[in-house]
Amino acid sequence: MSKPTIGFVGLGAMGFGMATHLVHEGYSVHGFDVFPSSVQRFQAAGGIPASSLRESAEGKPIYVCMVASAPQVQSVLFDEEGIVQYLPKNATLLLCSTVPASYAQSVAAELQSCGRGDILLIDSPVSGGAKRAADGTLSIMAGGTEEALQSGHEILQAMSAPSKLYLVPGGIGAGSNMKMVHQVLAAIHILGASEAMGLAAQLGLDARTTADKIIRSETWTWMHENRFPRMVEEDWNPGASALTIILKDAGIITTSARQHRFPTPLCTTSEQIYISALLQGYGPKDDSAMVRQYYASPIASVTATAESQSEALQLVLDLMLGVNLVAAAEAIAFARYLKVDLAQFYELVSAAAGGSKVFNTKGLEMIEGQIGEKAPAGSQTIDEAIERLESVVQRARDLHCPLHLGNAALNVLFMAKRAGLGGDSATSVIKVFGKEQ
Amino acid sequence: MSKPTIGFVGLGAMGFGMATHLVHEGYSVHGFDVFPSSVQRFQAAGGIPASSLRESAEGKPIYVCMVASAPQVQSVLFDEEGIVQYLPKNATLLLCSTVPASYAQSVAAELQSCGRGDILLIDSPVSGGAKRAADGTLSIMAGGTEEALQSGHEILQAMSAPSKLYLVPGGIGAGSNMKMVHQVLAAIHILGASEAMGLAAQLGLDARTTADKIIRSETWTWMHENRFPRMVEEDWNPGASALTIILKDAGIITTSARQHRFPTPLCTTSEQIYISALLQGYGPKDDSAMVRQYYASPIASVTATAESQSEALQLVLDLMLGVNLVAAAEAIAFARYLKVDLAQFYELVSAAAGGSKVFNTKGLEMIEGQIGEKAPAGSQTIDEAIERLESVVQRARDLHCPLHLGNAALNVLFMAKRAGLGGDSATSVIKVFGKEQ
Repeated sequence: MSKPTIGFVGLGAMGFGMATHLVHEGYSVHGFDVFPSSVQRFQAAGGIPASSLRESAEGKPIYVCMVASAPQVQSVLFDEEGIVQYLPKNATLLLCSTVPASYAQSVAAELQSCGRGDILLIDSPVSGGAKRAADGTLSIMAGGTEEALQSGHEILQAMSAPSKLYLVPGGIGAGSNMKMVHQVLAAIHILGASEAMGLAAQLGLDARTTADKIIRSETWTWMHENRFPRMVEEDWNPGASALTIILKDAGIITTSARQHRFPTPLCTTSEQIYISALLQGYGPKDDSAMVRQYYASPIASVTATAESQSEALQLVLDLMLGVNLVAAAEAIAFARYLKVDLAQFYELVSAAAGGSKVFNTKGLEMIEGQIGEKAPAGSQTIDEAIERLESVVQRARDLHCPLHLGNAALNVLFMAKRAGLGGDSATSVIKVFGKEQ
Repeated sequence: MSKPTIGFVGLGAMGFGMATHLVHEGYSVHGFDVFPSSVQRFQAAGGIPASSLRESAEGKPIYVCMVASAPQVQSVLFDEEGIVQYLPKNATLLLCSTVPASYAQSVAAELQSCGRGDILLIDSPVSGGAKRAADGTLSIMAGGTEEALQSGHEILQAMSAPSKLYLVPGGIGAGSNMKMVHQVLAAIHILGASEAMGLAAQLGLDARTTADKIIRSETWTWMHENRFPRMVEEDWNPGASALTIILKDAGIITTSARQHRFPTPLCTTSEQIYISALLQGYGPKDDSAMVRQYYASPIASVTATAESQSEALQLVLDLMLGVNLVAAAEAIAFARYLKVDLAQFYELVSAAAGGSKVFNTKGLEMIEGQIGEKAPAGSQTIDEAIERLESVVQRARDLHCPLHLGNAALNVLFMAKRAGLGGDSATSVIKVFGKEQ
């Protein structure tokens, strides 16, 4: 059976990788981008250049939209020269851009109202970064009708790793919601990586050694492992992931959270610091440059001066344990509120950019509801979590080192304590986010 | 009756005003400072220069300590050349520096243990700024034994305005605690002034007109009125109140709050942004320069571009109403937790630098416990408070304007809603800070 011809729009860092991977898989991919240079680059990589949106869409039974934001999607689909009018009957449209769930739903409604209800829409945001895009090993969260998912299955599989195509129940919007609650963790952990290494520098710890030790510890996060090398090398002009990208995702989260009147204190804190950095001109730089918000000069040039290296390292680890714990609670509470399938959420996060060891242990405990009134023997209590985090926050205060996430997390733990949960297990911090609905 | 001779240490902005005012009142004041130029300036203003700590203390029945911080107090009192050994028997020692209550208590203990239990210590921090210091119209919060307060009463009265000498029940530490919970409001409102005017600039509002309208509105705070002129004129090198001063006070608050495991989300947020600004070199500048954290160029140069000036202004006012409401709740809840006399706290705040119209109305309602399960007819609910604050936070997000306090306040309101308080009166937000103890 011959492979279907594919139309593709959005040849940025992620889209270029996805489109060229499909080319390598033997598909005829007609790619378009507003930047002609991106189209030329795609052609050089074996793709078929499209000179217009129309050309990218006409006669293409499968179409992938990988532009950067909801307004761009709206323009690509429905503007005067929008592709919707040119797609053939019963075409499958994969909306891979990260957009609010409510926006994905509005696309479905607008397809109906403009007489293109025949188009098989799939709400299928992706995660994994440019390299995995190019390797065809992305995580993809796909929602849509049974028919649409069936029709797009082959392409979704081609772009994702074997076990990383998540068919999310709930139709259009479900994939975007899944991606969004995943990004709660990503948005916090990205700032967390800078907060950890900024504090380490302020404490007089060698950057490379510390990065290595954090990655091998219980405080491992995917973002630590991914961002630390670029952070230490200051490989951030432009680097692999511009600040504006996570800022856009954070905006989707906090906007949605506000619409639901749901508290997201750590994600909001991260977003506000990203916006502050934007004001300072950091927008196009890699998000690992956020370390500058904590330490004013290159962390690689810090010579180890901490009197007790192991004690100083422990402070950094304690910071991350506390932040990652509250981050897990915030993400899971929001996911639960949105009625996201928590088992699938856990599976997805464990294998994607939002992953952390704390999520894998404490997060799982929260998801499985093993949150006893009293902490089981040997497990950490809220009081104990406070104890450790309080010490490092105080130390940072004395050093005049900002600790935006550490302070926000500690205040959430204090709220839990004031609500009478001090002696309960640390995972019961999720209770301050309220009951299921 | 002849006036007693006074020893005085700490001739900085505040101390110089206080000491010279005492000179004008006819006291013989022997002033010392580590900076000889300050001593010379004091002499030129009619004071008697002391060439050493010893000289400032020997034979002085009354001694005022107005150095900047607890470590400085410790050094002045107890170091090798410390004044405690030189003060005459039964001298009265006014500790006017802003220090943690626990530190003031440690001074009392150390006086006992070093054999100077005869010294009549008064824990008497002040508030009001350099001008009121020079006018002798400060607010003073004084705690100590009956005997000490009686002995120091004349001097305390000489330095304070007629109704602004607060004799705080509870002995040593009580005055410092009162000052501290007052500073919760000051620390938040100082950043609030910059957040309001930064947002106004981002919205395209004329700075002077907006400042004027805010000051005449329900969102009036003492800090708005005091900081706006310097903020608009950029009179901040050095300006009247260095960032490091409020940063020191914020540190006392958050350190104490952490020791008590008490959440102070807005004050902590403010402190973290102050620390960030410190990292950017803003330490010696006036704290009104914090507006730069919200808007990158002079706000006075903004030409009014907002399509609807009144609508844009309303957003700024809505921001401040929400922030001031949660600030009042945070300060009152912390004061209540520390068993501060709330009636006195209200009286003090209403006439001091932490004052705000929202505190006078909503704060009073919280203090008087008029927090019904259901909001009384016509009064704002938590849901309504959320509604207004959410709109401006979203608008700021779309403009990429940081809104550190607005976001923190909104998350506290969301926590209240998640705790089931949405339909209750807005003042019931104080309940998320837990029960009285």
